[in-house]
Amino acid sequence: MTTHSEPSDLDILLDSGHEDEIRSFLRLLQRDELIELLQELSTPHRAKIFSYLHPSDLADFLTQLPEVEWNAVLEELDHEALSDLLSELEDPEIQRLLQMIQHQELPAILSDMESDDAADILGELSEQQALAILKQMPDEESDPIEKLLQYPEDSAGGLMQTELIAVPTTYSVSETIEAIRMLAEKDDDLDIYEIFVIDERHRLEGQISLKTLILADPTSTLGGLLDAEHYWVHPELDQEEVADYFQKYDLISLPVVDKGHHLLGRITVDDVVNVIEEEASEDILQLAGANKQDLVYDKILRSVMLRIPWLFTNLGGGLLTGYLMWLYKATLSEILALITFVPVITGMGGNVGTQSSSITVRGFAINRIDLSNFGRYLFKEMRVGALLGVLCGGSLMLIGYLWHGNPMLGVVVGSSLFMAMTLAAITGSLFPAFFTRIKIDPALASGPFVTTINDVTGILIYLTTATIFRQWLLH
Amino acid sequence: MTTHSEPSDLDILLDSGHEDEIRSFLRLLQRDELIELLQELSTPHRAKIFSYLHPSDLADFLTQLPEVEWNAVLEELDHEALSDLLSELEDPEIQRLLQMIQHQELPAILSDMESDDAADILGELSEQQALAILKQMPDEESDPIEKLLQYPEDSAGGLMQTELIAVPTTYSVSETIEAIRMLAEKDDDLDIYEIFVIDERHRLEGQISLKTLILADPTSTLGGLLDAEHYWVHPELDQEEVADYFQKYDLISLPVVDKGHHLLGRITVDDVVNVIEEEASEDILQLAGANKQDLVYDKILRSVMLRIPWLFTNLGGGLLTGYLMWLYKATLSEILALITFVPVITGMGGNVGTQSSSITVRGFAINRIDLSNFGRYLFKEMRVGALLGVLCGGSLMLIGYLWHGNPMLGVVVGSSLFMAMTLAAITGSLFPAFFTRIKIDPALASGPFVTTINDVTGILIYLTTATIFRQWLLH
Repeated sequence: MTTHSEPSDLDILLDSGHEDEIRSFLRLLQRDELIELLQELSTPHRAKIFSYLHPSDLADFLTQLPEVEWNAVLEELDHEALSDLLSELEDPEIQRLLQMIQHQELPAILSDMESDDAADILGELSEQQALAILKQMPDEESDPIEKLLQYPEDSAGGLMQTELIAVPTTYSVSETIEAIRMLAEKDDDLDIYEIFVIDERHRLEGQISLKTLILADPTSTLGGLLDAEHYWVHPELDQEEVADYFQKYDLISLPVVDKGHHLLGRITVDDVVNVIEEEASEDILQLAGANKQDLVYDKILRSVMLRIPWLFTNLGGGLLTGYLMWLYKATLSEILALITFVPVITGMGGNVGTQSSSITVRGFAINRIDLSNFGRYLFKEMRVGALLGVLCGGSLMLIGYLWHGNPMLGVVVGSSLFMAMTLAAITGSLFPAFFTRIKIDPALASGPFVTTINDVTGILIYLTTATIFRQWLLH
Repeated sequence: MTTHSEPSDLDILLDSGHEDEIRSFLRLLQRDELIELLQELSTPHRAKIFSYLHPSDLADFLTQLPEVEWNAVLEELDHEALSDLLSELEDPEIQRLLQMIQHQELPAILSDMESDDAADILGELSEQQALAILKQMPDEESDPIEKLLQYPEDSAGGLMQTELIAVPTTYSVSETIEAIRMLAEKDDDLDIYEIFVIDERHRLEGQISLKTLILADPTSTLGGLLDAEHYWVHPELDQEEVADYFQKYDLISLPVVDKGHHLLGRITVDDVVNVIEEEASEDILQLAGANKQDLVYDKILRSVMLRIPWLFTNLGGGLLTGYLMWLYKATLSEILALITFVPVITGMGGNVGTQSSSITVRGFAINRIDLSNFGRYLFKEMRVGALLGVLCGGSLMLIGYLWHGNPMLGVVVGSSLFMAMTLAAITGSLFPAFFTRIKIDPALASGPFVTTINDVTGILIYLTTATIFRQWLLH
């Protein structure tokens, strides 16, 4: 007896070819439901679904899939789909995909891509490989990519794309619309929100939103329609400052010009959204002594190499703290109760210091704090640290007294905690500001320094205070 | 003798009234240069500069200014400028400004604002005050704001604005352009990137980009022009998930619909950019046991109240660690050298744990990790933690031996550090996942737990190991 598998509702839907309904159905699926569905489907139906998926969803699916199954998926994708997929993937997966794609296919795949994405992909390859691929592309496509490759990845030049609409001031609105139409026919995926207006030497004069264009008299010339406010940046500008422009002025795109004000390209807001998230990830992980790369799954050794410097710094700090305790071993062996408060003193100093340094690093990153108003902010953190020190130190004073029955012990541990916490708030704020001042990324540098310094100073304050009051503690 | 002050270049420029040149001049100034300039200028010239500044730059200037000087600035601004300014300010400064503005002026100021910004401002006031102001506004303006006020600030409904272009499917392109023109005449600041197409019952059918509209035959109807892919969200959706939509699908705006698919409003990408930054700030500060509110300068007591719960948690953890040391005081007093490694053991466990939890929290936040692939990620972190433990533990083994001349002491401290670090990597990854699972913000909850647990387990491992090997340590 053979069993006939009945066609499921999904099969019927897929075979019906009702694009709208298929899309609606797919959109309503949760991410894991979609992945489960794709894993269960037969190859032809899976290929059909791929064609309806947004490349970003396809990228998600692939990322979740074990590497051995990648080939089966890639075989179902044409050049255009591969090009869209590559644009959506991130570093480690791009590398992995590039290893699987035949390099002779890359010129065709890159030709389908926007110039900034293509440059990002080529940037992942060795210079030699990249040049070999560029040589196989038509000059009109490889030239802009080659130019983009000259800029650092995290600069305005690294973010910009060369695809844009630039027309002379003398054009009329209807001539401009004709120019848009010609470009859109060549590249129908191109997002257009505004057009750039240039003079006869390709220097940027200003920009006009599509809204203005659509509402203007078709015969009027562009010169009179320019947006009152418009911004531009140079290609060397750091991507964080580019993101500031978008955030401050609510931009959708931003032209990039050279020193002579010639239009080089434009940056679009979708890339900036990624920059903001990337920079935040970087800060979060660097504050913990980890690294952006750690968000990648499977590179154990790389993770270890990236984290070990900061752990060794802290190992040294911890040993220095231990050495200080050894110096005071006479006091400690006489009054053994003192050691029970060592974890509190070092731990609390570390916590307050981390709070202050996280706030300072973030404050600088989002321009809430700068060097001109830092004094006011430092004064606030100092008072917060002192007040927290009073509360925690006061509690510890009482606990120290009740636990070991020695009021003087309470006074020593409580006042030490107060001093350690106040000082930690100050160093926690000062170090990031200092590193910002000398142009070192404060998120990268502050973590290890603040923790180590607060451990050392905390224990010094504590043991010195204890030694001074030694005779009362011995009672 | 009287001195005549010569008119400066800037005076001449300002008096010339060459708008373009004044804007160019202002744009080239650094932030602090601009602030310095504004502070030096005479009142009439300052007012002139204000009118050329982007409201965001004006907001920056005001934020830097001591509160006593605010009134002098506010007097130079009309309702429209005040409305723009309020839209650009953040929480604490909005509060401060609202206290200075006469509340009878607020209806007029809010009328000039986009609905989402107006709702945000009213959300800062008491319900009573907000209602009183809404009553003084024309119904057509207060109704949409009142509706927006019903949604939580951090939901799709809280982000959306009601200003948009929605036209019936049956409209032709030229009728649509006429509709845009009418709306643009009423509200010339409105950003339009796409139009929404609705059926006769105001249900969303799809959207059309301005680019498509500008290139279409003016007589064709909208039904055939709809974008193939379009997305929508319900107003209850959390703002983080809204941001995911924008990021994933590179959106410029996103319609919000109710359960019956009726169009309620739209969310624009400029608001989403702020959401992404805000959520990142929240994670960074919460991981350190601090709070978003800490980015505000002058609320000492509020900062203290927000940070104290987590510090008390850690105070308890530190005391518990100290108590464990007290339980082992026989071992510790016999072998005093053991105490010199207490800071290293607790510190390093804490560091590795913080690294793992920061990576996990961030991984969940940017969807790099989810509960389905968490196992793979945990296994990676465990191996990284173990390898780091081997390296740091191995070093400490050698140091312990060389310092105190006892090879067994080296073995005890080295192996304890290895175990503590491996375990810290595991707990550091598990806790955020657990909190994500039970729908508690992992950034908020993980910090205190991970640090406390790693301190306690680290010291337990260390002192237990030392007690087991006690007789060899005494040699």
